[in-house]
Amino acid sequence: MLKELGANYIGDNSFGFFVWAPLRKSVQLKIVSPSEKIIQMEKLENGYFGTVVKDIEEDARYVYILDEEIERPDPASRFQPDGVHKPSQIIRHDTFRWEDSDFELPLEDYIIYELHVGTFTPEGTFKAIIPKLPYLKELGVTALELMPVAQFPGARNWGYDGVYPFAVQNTYGGPDALKSLVNECHKNGLAVILDVVYNHLGPEGNYLGDFAPYFTDRYKAPWGQAINFDGPLSDEVRRYFIENALYWVEKFHIDALRIDAVHGIFDFSAKHFLSELRETVKERASRKVYLIAESDLNDVRLINPPDKGGYGLDAQWNDDFHHALHTLLTGEQQGYYKDFGKLWHMTKALKEGFVYSGQYSEFRKRRHGSSSSDRPARQFVVFCQNHDQVGNRMAGDRLSESQPLEKIKLAAAMVILSPYIPLLFMGEEYGETAPFQYFTSHSDKALAEAVTRGRKEEFAAFKWQREIPDPQSESTFLRSKINTELHNTGNHRILFDFYKTLIRMRKELPPLKNLSKDNMEVKDYEPQKVILIKRWHGNEQLLLAVNFNETTVQIDNPFDGTWQKVFDSSSDKWAGTGNDFFVKIDRLLQLNPYSLSLYRMEM
Amino acid sequence: MLKELGANYIGDNSFGFFVWAPLRKSVQLKIVSPSEKIIQMEKLENGYFGTVVKDIEEDARYVYILDEEIERPDPASRFQPDGVHKPSQIIRHDTFRWEDSDFELPLEDYIIYELHVGTFTPEGTFKAIIPKLPYLKELGVTALELMPVAQFPGARNWGYDGVYPFAVQNTYGGPDALKSLVNECHKNGLAVILDVVYNHLGPEGNYLGDFAPYFTDRYKAPWGQAINFDGPLSDEVRRYFIENALYWVEKFHIDALRIDAVHGIFDFSAKHFLSELRETVKERASRKVYLIAESDLNDVRLINPPDKGGYGLDAQWNDDFHHALHTLLTGEQQGYYKDFGKLWHMTKALKEGFVYSGQYSEFRKRRHGSSSSDRPARQFVVFCQNHDQVGNRMAGDRLSESQPLEKIKLAAAMVILSPYIPLLFMGEEYGETAPFQYFTSHSDKALAEAVTRGRKEEFAAFKWQREIPDPQSESTFLRSKINTELHNTGNHRILFDFYKTLIRMRKELPPLKNLSKDNMEVKDYEPQKVILIKRWHGNEQLLLAVNFNETTVQIDNPFDGTWQKVFDSSSDKWAGTGNDFFVKIDRLLQLNPYSLSLYRMEM
Repeated sequence: MLKELGANYIGDNSFGFFVWAPLRKSVQLKIVSPSEKIIQMEKLENGYFGTVVKDIEEDARYVYILDEEIERPDPASRFQPDGVHKPSQIIRHDTFRWEDSDFELPLEDYIIYELHVGTFTPEGTFKAIIPKLPYLKELGVTALELMPVAQFPGARNWGYDGVYPFAVQNTYGGPDALKSLVNECHKNGLAVILDVVYNHLGPEGNYLGDFAPYFTDRYKAPWGQAINFDGPLSDEVRRYFIENALYWVEKFHIDALRIDAVHGIFDFSAKHFLSELRETVKERASRKVYLIAESDLNDVRLINPPDKGGYGLDAQWNDDFHHALHTLLTGEQQGYYKDFGKLWHMTKALKEGFVYSGQYSEFRKRRHGSSSSDRPARQFVVFCQNHDQVGNRMAGDRLSESQPLEKIKLAAAMVILSPYIPLLFMGEEYGETAPFQYFTSHSDKALAEAVTRGRKEEFAAFKWQREIPDPQSESTFLRSKINTELHNTGNHRILFDFYKTLIRMRKELPPLKNLSKDNMEVKDYEPQKVILIKRWHGNEQLLLAVNFNETTVQIDNPFDGTWQKVFDSSSDKWAGTGNDFFVKIDRLLQLNPYSLSLYRMEM
Repeated sequence: MLKELGANYIGDNSFGFFVWAPLRKSVQLKIVSPSEKIIQMEKLENGYFGTVVKDIEEDARYVYILDEEIERPDPASRFQPDGVHKPSQIIRHDTFRWEDSDFELPLEDYIIYELHVGTFTPEGTFKAIIPKLPYLKELGVTALELMPVAQFPGARNWGYDGVYPFAVQNTYGGPDALKSLVNECHKNGLAVILDVVYNHLGPEGNYLGDFAPYFTDRYKAPWGQAINFDGPLSDEVRRYFIENALYWVEKFHIDALRIDAVHGIFDFSAKHFLSELRETVKERASRKVYLIAESDLNDVRLINPPDKGGYGLDAQWNDDFHHALHTLLTGEQQGYYKDFGKLWHMTKALKEGFVYSGQYSEFRKRRHGSSSSDRPARQFVVFCQNHDQVGNRMAGDRLSESQPLEKIKLAAAMVILSPYIPLLFMGEEYGETAPFQYFTSHSDKALAEAVTRGRKEEFAAFKWQREIPDPQSESTFLRSKINTELHNTGNHRILFDFYKTLIRMRKELPPLKNLSKDNMEVKDYEPQKVILIKRWHGNEQLLLAVNFNETTVQIDNPFDGTWQKVFDSSSDKWAGTGNDFFVKIDRLLQLNPYSLSLYRMEM
């Protein structure tokens, strides 16, 4: 009867409470409101405790009492109406009226729009996103990716300090509001991806260790204690996170999970957690679901199929693509950008996915990565901006803050017309002027000070440039809010139309729509800084000519046939220096500075 | 010119010195004898320093001076004539007269004899082993496995506290004596396996950290600091150990490496160290070499081929086989034995290799392992005793100390007639009475005390049984020396002949000689505690009937045909209760207590 962690409606006006507390002799359920009541829980197998409560009030709040000593919210809490330190609230999932019956979008058709709920709208709620869906549909994206929504301390956080992986952030509107958003998305043909964090829990309000060995000191993790995925009792820790993945899919109709920073998941056991996650989620989910990893490992094992010894994830973010593109456009060479900056990095990213597939990395001071050349294009998510690549800069400045329009357009075209799954970061599509800065709202004073100090130290070398934003300050959060209304004004409108056009072309031109690295030929010209990409599907042939040079370049077209130019990012239509009068060409390609032009083979 | 780590003869009366010291600004070579001389070394790429010295004396000893401050022996020292704290000595490898030209033994034909150089003979040297080779040939084993010989502190050590992976232990006779042993082995048709430790270095005389980041704190390793296989500068750490593997193969004609405790090798990078080791060693070695892992992971990835995402090692030790067999015979249930003891454990070990292939382990308190059922039989090394399974017992007592002869013979027959590669531990073949206890000879006083104390604490619960041997005491070492002369006396002789017979049968009977899990059918009878194993090759069919019961059991033979008994471990020939008059049988198998009998199908 008690099959799921947490408090779950099990019919007959009853709720089952089910919690894992192998370190405890006794666990009591304390219902704290509307009326107080303490119930002894039964000790079950494998360190679980459970009880069933009949006729419980719909909005009852509760805590667990461990060994008759300490009161703690539920590690699998479905809702923390008053934040991370206060009681959990029960939630009924069977009452929501879903209207999205058979929504499904193949991964190949994903065009992802990453957004942060708190800063996407003035209200910072799920509800406030719904009126924006027509705008997103106009843009043409097909999937919303929500930065993590698991309950974090306070009201302002990127989401990676979440401490209740099952509880939807109260200040975003809680679980029902998320369901409404997903429902509306699906009705509008938009998939929803959720960013989930399985590599650590946040530092404030993290009471899991009081229940069970969720954490381990065997590994030094980058963001707090490593999660115990391979030590004693780790089976149930794995279950907790796997059930979490299923929870989003089943109860919230989430279509895909973006698994945060899997390089922080330390698991030396014979069956890697991600492999078990994939296997169990795919087997048990009643809906189709995609698993997409964020990874700093360049390890093809993540996306290799099981018969090749892989974990079988559907896709992964490809940071190398971003870095290759970013460095070509900006010339930046600090930090990890020092490993990039050559034209061949971009070419390799286009051809294979990973740029570092075993080569020495100056930044890492060791060889890095394995080859992904065998993997199909749909297994890579690419972007020219995302929350990290913008937000981890000292000032959280977007590409459009520092770069001229021609480069911005080129960046967008490289991503959206790539053979990979494109991801846009909210506001990118019209050149939002607000930064996306790092913000938190810890109530623990020492922690709050540490975060502020940490950020200052991290960017100490750049302090002479401008003030380092204080993560704890509300103004940092408010400064990061975007204003999509801007898209209708001045050059923002041109950029927005440009993005729309790119997305439309991707959807409509068969060689672009049908992702395949096989139906593609890439040539690069190092001295001229030009990349030519031929893509085809059936009889249709396209040529993408990319010029990363600051001057106009002429290139002898190596591909036979007569080509008709159909698009040029540098056209005056897009506030560029070129014209919009496109001629046929036989041999000579004339490429404007920092431009991507598209040619169609005459048949 | 400087291609190999350490001091190497490079022709023309010259030695090249080549050392990795990326943490140092300057490195000087100090020749300390026969005549003193200091030579500034040239700083080369990637943190290496090198120099070439002409006309250097043949037995010159040297240290490196780091940053003009501290003197240290060579991390890649070829010889430490005065132990771990004193200067290194140069060695010429081109002068040894090898007489084993084209020796090669296929892994399938390995019958391994594990020995500890210090306790195998009264002298405790390589040289003293040579006169024993006829004895080993008489026994019939085909490969000697030497416990680690890399220089360790003092004169008494199992070898796992080695701190100069390239230097052959001085008290064993140094590098030339090892070569002579290998040469003689090969001339006698015996392969030589060397146990190498790539998961940690010993605690005393370990100066590697003064040169370079060989170690890391990112992982908590069981036996001291983890080795840096995936952090900054780890490429050169990997090179050090890979070159070490090649060194043994090329300079000492070692035929196979037994890689100690690979579960202590922490590597999260996209290319696992063991995968790189296999790739590089197989590619660069001029001789055929086998790589055999010791692993506590039950991770089939180790021995899977690269196209299945495996590391491609040739074989691995299968502890599960040991535990299944040991518990059936002894009934022991402490520690990891609690996961074993049922007949099906033994059956599964016979059929698949790993017993734990994803099942919950009570001992580990988590699920453990992946399935090895696809892997061929030659990829598993099995044993009923080995240095660990004997030596890690408090008193280091062998199976023959506590178990009656019938069980000892049964254990031996299970191992030697198994479809896997058998390994015997020195002395096992005649029921040596000496224990194999844990011994060390640290000169560092605090460390020595800690080792003694540690051992006492580890076995505190058993103290009432008998005195816990002090690892640091010389008597512990002397007590562990074996006396192979014993094999000619009384029941020892019978056991020895029994082992000889088993080995001869394994070599001569085609169904036993040709390892294949496919040409095998295994049936077990839980209530009777009987396992029947049919094995075949071509037309030849064999039936092994194993009775783990303390009483005689009758079993209806499920395999068609008329069978002639050809061997019975319980025969009076082997001091058992059965007779040596073997009859043909059609249906009913009569199996004596704790016996293995062998039947041949009449054709």
